[in-house]
This record gives sequence, C-alpha cells and structure tokens, in this order.
Amino acid sequence: MTTDWKSVRLFPIPSVIYLIHNNVQFATLMYVDTSTYQIMGNLKIVTTGILFRLFLKKKLSNLQWMAIVLLAVGTTTSQVKGCGEASCDSLFSAPIQGYMLGILSACLSALAGVYTEFLMKKNNDSLFWQNIQLYTFGSIFNMARLVVDDFRGGFEKGPWWQRLFNGYSITTWLVVLNLGSTGLLVSWLMKYADNIVKVYSTSMAMLLTMVLSVFLFSFKPTLQVGFIAVKLACHHFSNLGSYIFVFSASSQLFLGIIVCMMSLHMYFAPPHMLVDIPPAIKSDPESLVNVPVDRKTDS
Amino acid sequence: MTTDWKSVRLFPIPSVIYLIHNNVQFATLMYVDTSTYQIMGNLKIVTTGILFRLFLKKKLSNLQWMAIVLLAVGTTTSQVKGCGEASCDSLFSAPIQGYMLGILSACLSALAGVYTEFLMKKNNDSLFWQNIQLYTFGSIFNMARLVVDDFRGGFEKGPWWQRLFNGYSITTWLVVLNLGSTGLLVSWLMKYADNIVKVYSTSMAMLLTMVLSVFLFSFKPTLQVGFIAVKLACHHFSNLGSYIFVFSASSQLFLGIIVCMMSLHMYFAPPHMLVDIPPAIKSDPESLVNVPVDRKTDS
Repeated sequence: MTTDWKSVRLFPIPSVIYLIHNNVQFATLMYVDTSTYQIMGNLKIVTTGILFRLFLKKKLSNLQWMAIVLLAVGTTTSQVKGCGEASCDSLFSAPIQGYMLGILSACLSALAGVYTEFLMKKNNDSLFWQNIQLYTFGSIFNMARLVVDDFRGGFEKGPWWQRLFNGYSITTWLVVLNLGSTGLLVSWLMKYADNIVKVYSTSMAMLLTMVLSVFLFSFKPTLQVGFIAVKLACHHFSNLGSYIFVFSASSQLFLGIIVCMMSLHMYFAPPHMLVDIPPAIKSDPESLVNVPVDRKTDS
Repeated sequence: MTTDWKSVRLFPIPSVIYLIHNNVQFATLMYVDTSTYQIMGNLKIVTTGILFRLFLKKKLSNLQWMAIVLLAVGTTTSQVKGCGEASCDSLFSAPIQGYMLGILSACLSALAGVYTEFLMKKNNDSLFWQNIQLYTFGSIFNMARLVVDDFRGGFEKGPWWQRLFNGYSITTWLVVLNLGSTGLLVSWLMKYADNIVKVYSTSMAMLLTMVLSVFLFSFKPTLQVGFIAVKLACHHFSNLGSYIFVFSASSQLFLGIIVCMMSLHMYFAPPHMLVDIPPAIKSDPESLVNVPVDRKTDS
C-alpha cells in the first residue's frame, strides 16, 4: 500500500480534470442543441484512442484504429435523429465555439480516463485503497463547494450536512447505488482492462439500452423508419387466437449495432482469426507457379 | 478464339438470368415501395460475396467477409431516407412476398455477375470476342421480343426496325454511349478483376454521385440532418467581400462514406498493413517475462 505524498498527490488530478470537463460541458450546451451535443460525445471514442496511444504508449494496429473509428461511426449512426422529431436545421448549424468546446470536452474526458488508467496501473496497490484515494479527493472537492455555498447563503438553511439527504426517496437511493456500483466497476476495468475496453462497454451498454427501450417502452429511438409487423400465427395455440406482435424497430439502430459488432470483432479478435496468415513466412515458389491454373484454356 | 458450340452455348445464360431478374424486379416493386426496394438492393453485395465464394471457389478471410457486410451497411446508411421526405410507416411494412422477391432478386443479380465472371475468365479468348458473344445473345433476345410485339400489334406501325431510332435526341445517344461504355468497362472488370471489385466500384460510384449531387444540384440525398454553414472569411480577397459558402450535407451520407472507405481498406489492404504480424512466428519466452515490467511498484 503506497501512502507517501508523492503517490497520493496524483489522485486529485482526475477530480480536477472532471471538474473542468463538467464546466466545459455546460458551456458547450450554451452553443449547441442536445442532439448535436450527444453526437459530438462520440468523438470521445476517437480521442480516447489517441490519448491511450500517446500517454500509455500502447501500440494499436491499423485495423484497431479502424475499429475505433467504426465504433464512433456506429454509435453515431444509431443516434442520428430523424427530422420529424428533432429540429432539422439546428443540427450542425451551431457557432464554431460550440464545436471547439465539444472537441475540448472530448479531449478532457479522454484525458481523465487515460490518467485514471495510469494511476490504477502504476503500482500493485489494492483496488480499494486506490478507490479510497480517488473518491476521498472527489468528496473533499464537493464538500468544499457545499461549504462555500453555505457561507454565501449565510447559513440561512443551516449547515449542509443537516440537509444532505433531504428529499431522498427509495428511487434516489437506487440511483446512488447504481452510480456507485458503476464507479467501482469502471475502476476495476481501468486496473485490469483498459480505456478501450471501457469505451466498448459504454457503447454496448448504450445500444443495449436503446434496444431494450424499443421493446419495453415502445421508445422510438432515432429515425423511426417504420414498424416491423411480425405476425405470429401461433398454429400450436390456434384456440387461443392469433397473437400479433407488433414491435417498432429503427433501421438505423440496427445498422449502428452491426457496425459496432464488426468494430468489436476487429479490435479484440486475434489477427490469425481475421486474416489468413501463412503458417511459415517464407517465399514458396510453387504457389506462384500455381496461379495460371485458374485460366485454363478450353480450346 | 473459342468458336465451338460447347463454349458459345454458355453465353446466352447471363442474358436469361438477367431476363428473369428484370421480371422479378418488377414483381418486387408491386409489393414494396421504392425506398425499401433501393435499400434491399444492397443485399446484392452480400449475395455476390456468398456466390463468389461458392461458385468461383475464392477463399475470403473473416476480415474480408466483415468488409463485405460493412460495405452493405455503409451504402444502406447513406440511403436510409428521413421521415420528413418519404412515407415513414411504409418502409419495412411490406408483405412477406416483397421481401422474398427482394432476396430472390439479390441472388439472381449476384448469380448473373458471378456466372459472367466465370465465362470471362474460363479461357484466354479476347475480351472483344467474349463481349460479342454476350451482346449478340442479348440483342437476339430483345429482337425476338420486338418481333413478337409486332406480330401481336399486327404490324400496324410497320416493322420494328423502321421505328428503332424514333425519338432519339442527342441526350438519348449520350445515354446509349454511357451505358455502352459502362458495359464494356464491367466486362473488363469481370475478366481482369472480379465481382467484388465491381461491387466496390458500383458502391463508390453511388456515393460519389450522391456527394456530387449535394454540391451541384443542392440535392438533399437522404435524411437531411442539417446544413453545415461554412463561412469563409476570405481575408486575402477582403475587397471582393466575404463569400459565404453554404452547402448542405447529410450526416448519414458522411457516416456511410466512412464505413465504405473502411470496408474498402479492410478488403483490399494486404494483411501486414492491417495487423502486426510478427516477423517470425515462434514462441519467444522472453516476451512473456517482460510483461510484469508494466506494473512497477513505486513503494
């Protein structure tokens, strides 16, 4: 367990980056609409790849770079909104500041992720000790803000710790539990896997959520191209009548999922499963002679 | 030059397949709307890959299969229409016969392509002799139809060859010239390249047409997500005023093009450019020992 200040002082850095990132996000939203904002968020996938390569010195093959770009394209494809629903002309018509802030936001988010991975992997400390350091600094920053607010408000409503759980219902606690567990899982990913695995997990979770929303809530996710009406005649239960299952599906969501799945396979599959690598790399003169067999003459 | 009947008798077969294919296409359009029809047309890319593998015994790597699926997804992405323009609910709500005919159409089209490639490659005959055989049979089939029509109409308008060029303007001749040149180029592709190259060329031509249409005709290709307003301040020509170039671009077209370009690279790039193939495939025990260096302890 590393407890010297030289190591501990690195742990507030992710909190500070996220602090700046959150403020940049709000600034971005002043310039762009939410659809553009959501779509620009996918830029984070590419910036994470770049910073992952630069700071963690991980070498990616060309195919893995292509996979990262395809993941960004796939998630974007499934998110692009139809004109009917959202404002058509507003998307991509934001002032240039909006795009600059969006790019900055993607870089900051990637930087925080890559830095956290560096922190988690730099020594063999227990995951829990590392999390304690990360979250303690996060809590201190948040408490500092609450204290400042209290002083500004002149303690009219009493100190912040008396109002900390005001309005907490069972739903609130479930949200806290959910976010807390996610945080622990992410730190586990950062220590034992890497940022790219996290990016893939996040994208897959997003797509899974969209698919489940289609079925559970009849949510119309993106460009609602149409309804697939699947009529199950239910011959076996004909006495129960014919069930007609009508579910809506977005063709763009479907296309996005295919692209993301291909990307996943391209990134993680071992090379010999993707391309035919000759078992021994040495020039085989016979294989060259065999080529003209293809063009046999009938005459 | 192969002139025996055993070889020549194979050349009407593509014409016959295309004859059936054309009729299936019209039957398909009785069931589905044009948007669905256009999107189902991309299925041809995948069926061409499958028949290419089955009949021409060309081995494709897993990555090349993925590239073919991605090409189909990419072209579809750029074609999916927005709800504002086309009928939203009609797409993918066609009766099952429409889909069956669409699949049949994709298979027939691929079969004709693969069979033509087999014909062009099966001997070293000149490309022109092979084309003469192909087009002669095509002309005979068309003339037969014209004669049948004449007999049905009782030669009221005279024989067909007197009316063959009625209504031909310079535009008509340019279309004929264009289609004729395309036909010759395709036969060249079939002989010296293959069906997959043809599929990529067709898709790239389609995307190029869409991009050019955006710029030349302000054509709104698919889901018109928005306008990218690029203001070129033209500092160098400030006395000429500020030019404001506003061009519309479809984000889906853009996403589709990225996917297609990735696919192109995945299919045609040599494997060593895509993945890092170790120069000598033998187990190197040292590389395994080196792994824990990554987790150096600071304590």
